[in-house]
Amino acid sequence: MDQGDGNSKISSVYINNTHGVDDDDFYDRNLALFEEEMDTRPKVSSLLSRLANYTNLTQGAKEHEEAENIGEKKKASKSPQMGTFMGVYLPCLQNIFGVILFLRLTWVVGTAGVLQALCIVFICCCCTMLTAISMSAIATNGVVPAGGSYFMISRSLGPEFGGAVGLCFYLGTTFAGAMYILGAIEILLMYMAPKAAIFVSPLHPEGEAAAMLNDMRVYGSICLLLMSLLVFVGVKYVNKLASVFLACVILSIISIYIGALVSAFKPPHFPVCMLGNRTINAHEIHDQTTGLTLDPSHVPTLMETTYLWQQFCHSPELNASCDEYFIWNNFSEIEGIPGLASGIISENLWSSYLSKGDVVEKGSLSSSHAAHPASTRQPYVFADITTSFTLLVGIFFPSVTGIMAGSNRSGDLKDAQETFISVHALFSVIFFSTAIKASLTGAPRLLQAIAKDNIIPFLRVFGHGKANGEPTWALLLTALIAELGILIASLDLVAPILTMFFLMCYLFVNLACALQTLLRTPNWRPRFSYYHWTLSFLGMTVCLALMFISSWYYAIIAMVIAGMIYKYIEYHGAEKEWGDGIRGLSLSAARYALLRLEEGPPHTKNWRPQLLVLLKLDEDAHVKSPRLLTFASQLKAGKGLTIVGTVVSGNFLQSYGEALAAEQTLKHLMDKERVKGFCQCIVAQKPREGISHMIQSSGLGGMKPNTVVMGWPHAWRQSEDPISRLTAPPLFLSDTVRPCADGYIDVWWIVHDGGMLMLLPFLLRQHKVWRKCGMRIFTVAQMEDNSIQMKKDLATFLYHLRIEAEVEVVEMHDSDISAYTYERTLMMEQRSQMLRQMRLSKSDREKEVRSDRMPIQMTWTKEKTSQYRITHSGCSTPEGFRDMLSIRPDHSNVRRMHTAVKLNEVIVNKSHDARLVLLNMPGPPRNSEGDENYMEFLEVLTEGLERVLLVRGGGSEVITIYS
Amino acid sequence: MDQGDGNSKISSVYINNTHGVDDDDFYDRNLALFEEEMDTRPKVSSLLSRLANYTNLTQGAKEHEEAENIGEKKKASKSPQMGTFMGVYLPCLQNIFGVILFLRLTWVVGTAGVLQALCIVFICCCCTMLTAISMSAIATNGVVPAGGSYFMISRSLGPEFGGAVGLCFYLGTTFAGAMYILGAIEILLMYMAPKAAIFVSPLHPEGEAAAMLNDMRVYGSICLLLMSLLVFVGVKYVNKLASVFLACVILSIISIYIGALVSAFKPPHFPVCMLGNRTINAHEIHDQTTGLTLDPSHVPTLMETTYLWQQFCHSPELNASCDEYFIWNNFSEIEGIPGLASGIISENLWSSYLSKGDVVEKGSLSSSHAAHPASTRQPYVFADITTSFTLLVGIFFPSVTGIMAGSNRSGDLKDAQETFISVHALFSVIFFSTAIKASLTGAPRLLQAIAKDNIIPFLRVFGHGKANGEPTWALLLTALIAELGILIASLDLVAPILTMFFLMCYLFVNLACALQTLLRTPNWRPRFSYYHWTLSFLGMTVCLALMFISSWYYAIIAMVIAGMIYKYIEYHGAEKEWGDGIRGLSLSAARYALLRLEEGPPHTKNWRPQLLVLLKLDEDAHVKSPRLLTFASQLKAGKGLTIVGTVVSGNFLQSYGEALAAEQTLKHLMDKERVKGFCQCIVAQKPREGISHMIQSSGLGGMKPNTVVMGWPHAWRQSEDPISRLTAPPLFLSDTVRPCADGYIDVWWIVHDGGMLMLLPFLLRQHKVWRKCGMRIFTVAQMEDNSIQMKKDLATFLYHLRIEAEVEVVEMHDSDISAYTYERTLMMEQRSQMLRQMRLSKSDREKEVRSDRMPIQMTWTKEKTSQYRITHSGCSTPEGFRDMLSIRPDHSNVRRMHTAVKLNEVIVNKSHDARLVLLNMPGPPRNSEGDENYMEFLEVLTEGLERVLLVRGGGSEVITIYS
Repeated sequence: MDQGDGNSKISSVYINNTHGVDDDDFYDRNLALFEEEMDTRPKVSSLLSRLANYTNLTQGAKEHEEAENIGEKKKASKSPQMGTFMGVYLPCLQNIFGVILFLRLTWVVGTAGVLQALCIVFICCCCTMLTAISMSAIATNGVVPAGGSYFMISRSLGPEFGGAVGLCFYLGTTFAGAMYILGAIEILLMYMAPKAAIFVSPLHPEGEAAAMLNDMRVYGSICLLLMSLLVFVGVKYVNKLASVFLACVILSIISIYIGALVSAFKPPHFPVCMLGNRTINAHEIHDQTTGLTLDPSHVPTLMETTYLWQQFCHSPELNASCDEYFIWNNFSEIEGIPGLASGIISENLWSSYLSKGDVVEKGSLSSSHAAHPASTRQPYVFADITTSFTLLVGIFFPSVTGIMAGSNRSGDLKDAQETFISVHALFSVIFFSTAIKASLTGAPRLLQAIAKDNIIPFLRVFGHGKANGEPTWALLLTALIAELGILIASLDLVAPILTMFFLMCYLFVNLACALQTLLRTPNWRPRFSYYHWTLSFLGMTVCLALMFISSWYYAIIAMVIAGMIYKYIEYHGAEKEWGDGIRGLSLSAARYALLRLEEGPPHTKNWRPQLLVLLKLDEDAHVKSPRLLTFASQLKAGKGLTIVGTVVSGNFLQSYGEALAAEQTLKHLMDKERVKGFCQCIVAQKPREGISHMIQSSGLGGMKPNTVVMGWPHAWRQSEDPISRLTAPPLFLSDTVRPCADGYIDVWWIVHDGGMLMLLPFLLRQHKVWRKCGMRIFTVAQMEDNSIQMKKDLATFLYHLRIEAEVEVVEMHDSDISAYTYERTLMMEQRSQMLRQMRLSKSDREKEVRSDRMPIQMTWTKEKTSQYRITHSGCSTPEGFRDMLSIRPDHSNVRRMHTAVKLNEVIVNKSHDARLVLLNMPGPPRNSEGDENYMEFLEVLTEGLERVLLVRGGGSEVITIYS
Repeated sequence: MDQGDGNSKISSVYINNTHGVDDDDFYDRNLALFEEEMDTRPKVSSLLSRLANYTNLTQGAKEHEEAENIGEKKKASKSPQMGTFMGVYLPCLQNIFGVILFLRLTWVVGTAGVLQALCIVFICCCCTMLTAISMSAIATNGVVPAGGSYFMISRSLGPEFGGAVGLCFYLGTTFAGAMYILGAIEILLMYMAPKAAIFVSPLHPEGEAAAMLNDMRVYGSICLLLMSLLVFVGVKYVNKLASVFLACVILSIISIYIGALVSAFKPPHFPVCMLGNRTINAHEIHDQTTGLTLDPSHVPTLMETTYLWQQFCHSPELNASCDEYFIWNNFSEIEGIPGLASGIISENLWSSYLSKGDVVEKGSLSSSHAAHPASTRQPYVFADITTSFTLLVGIFFPSVTGIMAGSNRSGDLKDAQETFISVHALFSVIFFSTAIKASLTGAPRLLQAIAKDNIIPFLRVFGHGKANGEPTWALLLTALIAELGILIASLDLVAPILTMFFLMCYLFVNLACALQTLLRTPNWRPRFSYYHWTLSFLGMTVCLALMFISSWYYAIIAMVIAGMIYKYIEYHGAEKEWGDGIRGLSLSAARYALLRLEEGPPHTKNWRPQLLVLLKLDEDAHVKSPRLLTFASQLKAGKGLTIVGTVVSGNFLQSYGEALAAEQTLKHLMDKERVKGFCQCIVAQKPREGISHMIQSSGLGGMKPNTVVMGWPHAWRQSEDPISRLTAPPLFLSDTVRPCADGYIDVWWIVHDGGMLMLLPFLLRQHKVWRKCGMRIFTVAQMEDNSIQMKKDLATFLYHLRIEAEVEVVEMHDSDISAYTYERTLMMEQRSQMLRQMRLSKSDREKEVRSDRMPIQMTWTKEKTSQYRITHSGCSTPEGFRDMLSIRPDHSNVRRMHTAVKLNEVIVNKSHDARLVLLNMPGPPRNSEGDENYMEFLEVLTEGLERVLLVRGGGSEVITIYS
């Protein structure tokens, strides 16, 4: 480098720099700090330009994009054709002034009285209004991919609720179609063309009603068939008449108001016959006295009189015995439509509910002998249904569902214009039956949408349609279900059914809104700001109340159906990535439960093992001791907390993938062993530190593990970390396999550290693998103990603990320390010494010795042990042993070794055939110098035993005799 | 040491050893391995000897021990006096054959018919039997400290449920007392001494019933007063008559069976007057025709006839107009007690429910003109209550509660002999009213027990009693409540009330049993093995059904009362160390919710910040930046997960206490800041490792933190760990204080890394502190961007995100790199170099330099910066600057510094008055050499800003425009 040319150097820096800025990384100079991850994180300017038409922004909308990509462009041009007034307001009005309002409102008012009718209307409207508010909030909370309440609910409450509610809504809409047809036929047969009746009515009311129902069934089915065919062959051809039908609707609405006004001043003549205050069935009189018209004079004509005489008296003679009521009361004729000014309102202020078969009476007329019962043979007008406030609610409710239908359409308006137009063009072919086709086109499309969402597998077939997308199969199913409704034949029986389904739907709309507000889902930011969760909650309550008020058994049936759909979707439904509001609920529930658990430490009698199972993965990422998990699952019998943890050694950034893989391995193993629990895997530079931190920090709140399970570290002689110190009651397990049906679990209860030794076998025996195993409890009596009394006490204690076990007290008398003990202690100490020296030098030349293993293997094999024992048995201080004792072993080590050897002898003697041996684990040494000796003691203690569980309680009681 | 005397050495070892074993640590040789903790963990032999009389074993029983220590000894000697037969079986029988059975069973059978009556008895017995099974399981699950279902439930379900159920049981028992008194008085007035009536009955049934009720009230109150006095002054004096009363009971029971048998063959004469099939009130006839006896001839006497004529006809003359029914029907007299053989059973097979005021008719008799209504003036027997199946269930149920009372006593038998004897000695002073005193002694004692448990603070006064322990105040309250029941006066109205309370109690017994079985509480090991959770569940269902069947409004009232007591105890009750079965429920709920949450990663629209707030404690264990918690609480608005964590450096065994203290500090601070969440504190040798492991392992299942919050490490220049690398979206916060009511939160949105920048201010503004703050979003447009279009797009985007914010696009044009930038980069690099060298040497002489700080402070203070800028403003390549550039700075560092300086200029310019500035945090450098430079860049970027939140998203979307 030329030192003198500093100027050129600087300029070259600038040139290089400028060059770089101008050419390849032009933007990098201004936003250079963020350049490292520009590939994954877009700059705002480029994001915004991509977002310009809001198609590629985020996940969650792909499903709908695919379906709508084709038609989108042409629809966009059509969209402005239909304004809010024509598109939403009028159809809503059409629906509101629907069949129920026209056919049943007068009846409802007459039966329930003006006040109660107002009450009914008020309650129903309240319900709908509150739901409309909730719906507005949901609808303005982001872009709804496609219209309709089904999508709103499914996208905000999740597929399970969405599917259940969607199907409810579908059934409701379908039955609504049936109801509209029934309404139309009823008008046709009752008012427009009574002659069209096919079935002849015998001369009593039951027969007449039955004949009417049969007429309804026949005509209804024909009508349904025609409508379905019309919808199937070509909805489009009728589209152009849409505005004509709309005009009809408006005209009708206006004429109602005009009629009401006109009749107030000049009531039309529509006479009704009365006997006393009982209404006479004019149809029958009319039919029998053909040719005579009901003229305005109040005196009955001869033929009428004759007919009536025949009906009420036993014989046509004048001296025949007649019906008492007939004798005592006069005939009269009153105005059927008296007009608003006639005081009819005050007369109808109060309710007059009737039972089925009651005679329809007019309260304002007088009568004598009122108690005399009417015979069904007589030509009175009888109530054909038992009315009550609750029933009327159920019948009236469908008339207020129009608002919801309108809000469905508001969704349609935007995204599915074609559907919308086809639905509403056909609207009102015949006034009063306007909504049939709305149901017959709307319902199949809804079903198709649900089917296409693929959340309900068995509905999949209904997702297919004709080439132009018309849902053929869905239409067929809809028609079939509607036919069911038509076979019921009575408007008053069908109405409560659809009331239920609509109310279910409303209930969930309100629930969704209230839940999301209460759970404070961050994504819950509706633009419609005039809602409050109390309103939604109130709406929900009203819906629920209405459901049970109008018919509690229908309500229960509807709920059971919805519940079954929910469960079905939960088990068999496709996984959906919509997310659900219920997640927030789970989160809240979990948080609440955990906080509640944290309030205090559990009482002894609530203690249950909450396991942290520490597993080790070998080089091939296989779990080293998978049996530990088997054991864990057997111990928990499926209940309580299990955390399975492992530590991957390495740097986090480099070993992150390895950790993920390890987690997957563990999860897979947990699934296999049917352990329900959680999995934790951390990357640590030093595994020992990692384990320590995991034990300290795993779990949350009250769900912290209180028991650590780990396998015996067989390689402890080669390892630097002999054993981690654990404060929670640890639980060491060497190995466990599926045992046979008999045998024993042996407990060696030497010190009492909380009773875990007794609790564990009890828990194990809850599992089917261990159920047939017996349990034996051994304890050790020494010289001064009264072993007979001890056995008795122990048995009593176990009785109070409600644990069944055989009890044995093993007497261990003092004996001198054997030479074997001495020799073994000595060898142990020598090896420890050696290990310490090696480790010291190892830490200096750490890198070099990492790969090579311990050079000297100094383990006592079993053969050697027994051989040695045989040789030296009996002689406690052999002569030839002295030279080995040139180093004097540590006093306490000798004593400990003595315990280990003696206990091991006793245990092997008694429990050699046990399926599992549980044993107190001695406390770890207080200073870490004794770690190797400690491991050696434990190995001596458990020598010759097949399956040992070393148990060490934390000191607190885990079992109690108290209730 | 003498080398030659090897033998003596060995023997001295042995001697020493033996000496030690013999003297001070005699037991240690056999159990030497366990000696280290013998002080805390007792040997089994010593434990068993201590347990011999089972008093000092575990916690949980102290409360009762204290109360019973005094009387225990003398009671123990009394105990054998009362066998199971005399002590449990007979009192049970007494209770079962109680007032309801004697007074109402016949009526129930007559009204409901034999079949339905059997059904009622079967349902009620089912309920009691199933409850008895559950109760047996609970009672055999360990030692119940004191008797009674209250203790069983409170000890197994926890104080809240225990208190609620206990009070229900108390109210039930008290009302039972009232019922027994009413029953006794009814017998007295109806059958034994009708003359004793005080109130005169006018001549119509309503008057008679009212007078009877008043009589009941007066006599009932007197009776209650007498009984209470008796109980108060001396229960003991009547004790000796116990067996006499028992004999009475047995005699009565036997006489019922004998009577039934005898009447089958030779029915007694007990005539009843009938008019047609309507029953005539014989009392009235009798009263009016005094002196005449009802003789067996069927012809009514003259006076009787005269009297009846007066009643049914308008005048005494023979030609007067008479009641039509009277004219057409004949008088007759039938047997009131026809005997079993008379076909009465088949006649009563079916039900004959009556409404209040209906005439009691005998179906087997014929009558004409049956439709003619009966006037209440006429001397018929009218039904005084509207009967139905459900009502009868409610009235009959108390007769089966005797079983429960018996099981209560079985507890008494064992632990509270004195109570038991005093209760049952008084039993049966007058047969039929046997149980009054049982209630009047039992109920106060129950109340006293509840009060002494101190779970319901306002009941505390009732825990006190007389010197001998008799509960004076409790007795007073009981008498007052019983008086309430007596004022109701009708047995048929009181019975359903106590039915409710008993059923509530039964329900919870079954619930407790079913729950503990299903939750597999390890301590749930009843010796009674003939139970199953399905039985308990069935029992629970039956109880619930019976409650709603017999009276749904009473059921709701009882549940509301119980619910209120539950909530009261939850809030105000004393903390009890009993533990509760509900804990297992919480555990299961938490586990279920967490597992459910774990099923998949949350959808974007369900994303909510789950914070891990990392706090640092200073040397005095104070939290260094407590404002972080304030911020966290403001961000969460109380919802979602918050984990507050800290790392204590040191060795676990040594620093364990310190960690506990730190946890307490954090918890205290969380309480203060009202952050509901969890607290984690781990001890780590290296804090950096600890933090890394905590971030990896904290949380459980779906409740893992997704956001890390930490303060700016102001001391990073002095620290070896500049910053931990975080993978979760981290969130850096410099400082935050309570802001004023106005102002802005400014968001500088430079790169899009998931939308967290937009979500955070939205969440903050949900909190009242930030509610009035506006939100501004700034983004950066460069040369080639159309900033007008960008602004429009951004506004639309925010509209779809439903976030209200002002939008501003800041144009940043390319500019040359200033000399200031160069100089600053250069100084940064020099310092980094120096730091690296120092650190290198430091690691060699680690111990020495640990205490001393960085010798050279090279930070740019604000003054210096602005001063420099003023001097050099305008000139981009000053001449006098060349000599500083002798070391050429790194190309990319210069560019990054340029970004930092330019952005900082713009941000300070626009947001200097903002309350909070949110800023994208640039990605950390890929290699750790850049760590210091990175920190320097961040400091330059945020220079001159008061409150900055550096936000770095994890890359996944956290906000969506979709619903």
